[in-house]
Amino acid sequence: MSRPTARAVHLVARPTGAATAEQFAFVEERVPALESGEALVENLYQSVDPYMREEMDEGGWDLHAPLEGRTLGRVVESRTDALPVGALVFHRQAWRTHAVVTPERAHLLPVFDGVPLSNHLSVLGGTGLSAWVGLTRIARFQPGESIFISAAAGGVGTAAGQLARLLGAGRIVGSAGSAAKAARLVDHLGFDAAFDYHDAPLADRLREAASDGLDVYFDNVGGDHLEAAIGALRDHGRIAWCGAVAQYDDLRNPPAAPRNLYDVVGKSLRLEGFLVRNHLDARPELYDFLVPHLRSGAVVAEETVVDGFDRVVDAFLGVMRGANTGKMIVHLAD
Amino acid sequence: MSRPTARAVHLVARPTGAATAEQFAFVEERVPALESGEALVENLYQSVDPYMREEMDEGGWDLHAPLEGRTLGRVVESRTDALPVGALVFHRQAWRTHAVVTPERAHLLPVFDGVPLSNHLSVLGGTGLSAWVGLTRIARFQPGESIFISAAAGGVGTAAGQLARLLGAGRIVGSAGSAAKAARLVDHLGFDAAFDYHDAPLADRLREAASDGLDVYFDNVGGDHLEAAIGALRDHGRIAWCGAVAQYDDLRNPPAAPRNLYDVVGKSLRLEGFLVRNHLDARPELYDFLVPHLRSGAVVAEETVVDGFDRVVDAFLGVMRGANTGKMIVHLAD
Repeated sequence: MSRPTARAVHLVARPTGAATAEQFAFVEERVPALESGEALVENLYQSVDPYMREEMDEGGWDLHAPLEGRTLGRVVESRTDALPVGALVFHRQAWRTHAVVTPERAHLLPVFDGVPLSNHLSVLGGTGLSAWVGLTRIARFQPGESIFISAAAGGVGTAAGQLARLLGAGRIVGSAGSAAKAARLVDHLGFDAAFDYHDAPLADRLREAASDGLDVYFDNVGGDHLEAAIGALRDHGRIAWCGAVAQYDDLRNPPAAPRNLYDVVGKSLRLEGFLVRNHLDARPELYDFLVPHLRSGAVVAEETVVDGFDRVVDAFLGVMRGANTGKMIVHLAD
Repeated sequence: MSRPTARAVHLVARPTGAATAEQFAFVEERVPALESGEALVENLYQSVDPYMREEMDEGGWDLHAPLEGRTLGRVVESRTDALPVGALVFHRQAWRTHAVVTPERAHLLPVFDGVPLSNHLSVLGGTGLSAWVGLTRIARFQPGESIFISAAAGGVGTAAGQLARLLGAGRIVGSAGSAAKAARLVDHLGFDAAFDYHDAPLADRLREAASDGLDVYFDNVGGDHLEAAIGALRDHGRIAWCGAVAQYDDLRNPPAAPRNLYDVVGKSLRLEGFLVRNHLDARPELYDFLVPHLRSGAVVAEETVVDGFDRVVDAFLGVMRGANTGKMIVHLAD
């Protein structure tokens, strides 16, 4: 069988400040013959994320070598029964048109009629699952409760707001990085109130937006947002602190601790952190709950889809500039 | 019926620094005739606690007026069926030999053969209940788990350590305010390790004492203890942050927030505050679990009992000096 020629992007230099296109190079590679237990995947969609900027620094990705990222693809050739030809799979060999995977490094994904495949990288993927787990398992969100979501215009935030509405939320309040993003939350995504978190003091903005108090805070940020939320939560309120991939920057540069943390005692609050990777077993719950709402249009998967492998570097640079609304995804092939 | 003459202690001056005996006065009062719905209680035991020092400041207790505190007494005369003559009751009219109470302001206590009545002010009272609730409801402590308890030589701490042992704890580590108190935890109260928290750095002492990591932190302190515990907890560890009356001082002067709070996300920790007054329904559970162990001697109720109403001021001043081991209680009558 003739081997396809694959295209890939390598890192060829490390940035000192902002990433630029010159630090990447497009290369061609011959796809190797499969060993037993391997499958060849044609990549269809890949995710580009802010955490990748950190990987460009010393100690991250190697230069002149394959890069990584969350990717969806279709099996086009297989020497393993676990990954049959035609199957849709999730794997981490991004920044290339083709990937050789093993069942240990790839898993099958269901195809839902009427739901775009790209949703597996947004509301049906890690971001949507983070929102679902934070609401249902960590905060144990109940119908009628009011909720505040920080970074609400991001992938996790837009999913959390929409899921909270479907779960019967009372008031839904979000913070976002611009007035335009805040307006979009209210006008298109069902939030009751939203504000630009640059409009300090944050605690005052939150008090105005949630004057009757809050039951749950979905924290994508920490720091001053957490402090404001502790101040606004009612007794017995819960905080789900999300460690999504999108917060990778924060892990190296943690936000300041809230000065009112001791109110966790006086108000009997519960603050619980979580990593979505420990809750992958919740995926079937998320699918069962969300897919009908995606089909009906009740949930909007917030995605910016950039078309074509040639534009993968541009898409990544766009994420770093905040050019995306919701999840930034690159469409590589049909 | 001839009325008994009651004795009481009033506050007659406010301290500027430490409290002294001159700020209190013993007075005699005629016990009034009971109205319908009231009962006369002879006080048997009362608690003296550090929070009372705050009540001596402007805005706290009135001068030349009755004071308050947790008290056990026996009903000696009654005009309400809810508080029959002979019943043991808990109420808050301390610093006096007799009190007129109503069913709204007093509740009946069970008498357990072979268990000292004073235990209702220590392990069977708010301090023991704080330990029980923190372990079972908040931390959801499991057999085999390791635990760190701060302020472990105090009333809540000694109860928490002993209850944890009975609940099947693995390693139990405590911090205390002196080397002697730390030694007592290990020698007499079943702790596996304990240290004087003045031996900084605290995080190092804790790491040495719990080198295999921790599952649960029972927090009576906050601040640097909480920071050290977050550092030592394993993934999915739980922190029960106790708002016992004994920490009243801290509520006005909260401890610094831990600098590593963000590890709550990375380690998937749960930090939950509680106030024992929201968990009074747990009392029957505590009684059922603890009373057999009190009878058998497996649990030591840590109490310093000072004998005689004449010594109630001395007992309070002793608490402020740290003269007590465990709960400081004044025995007023048999």
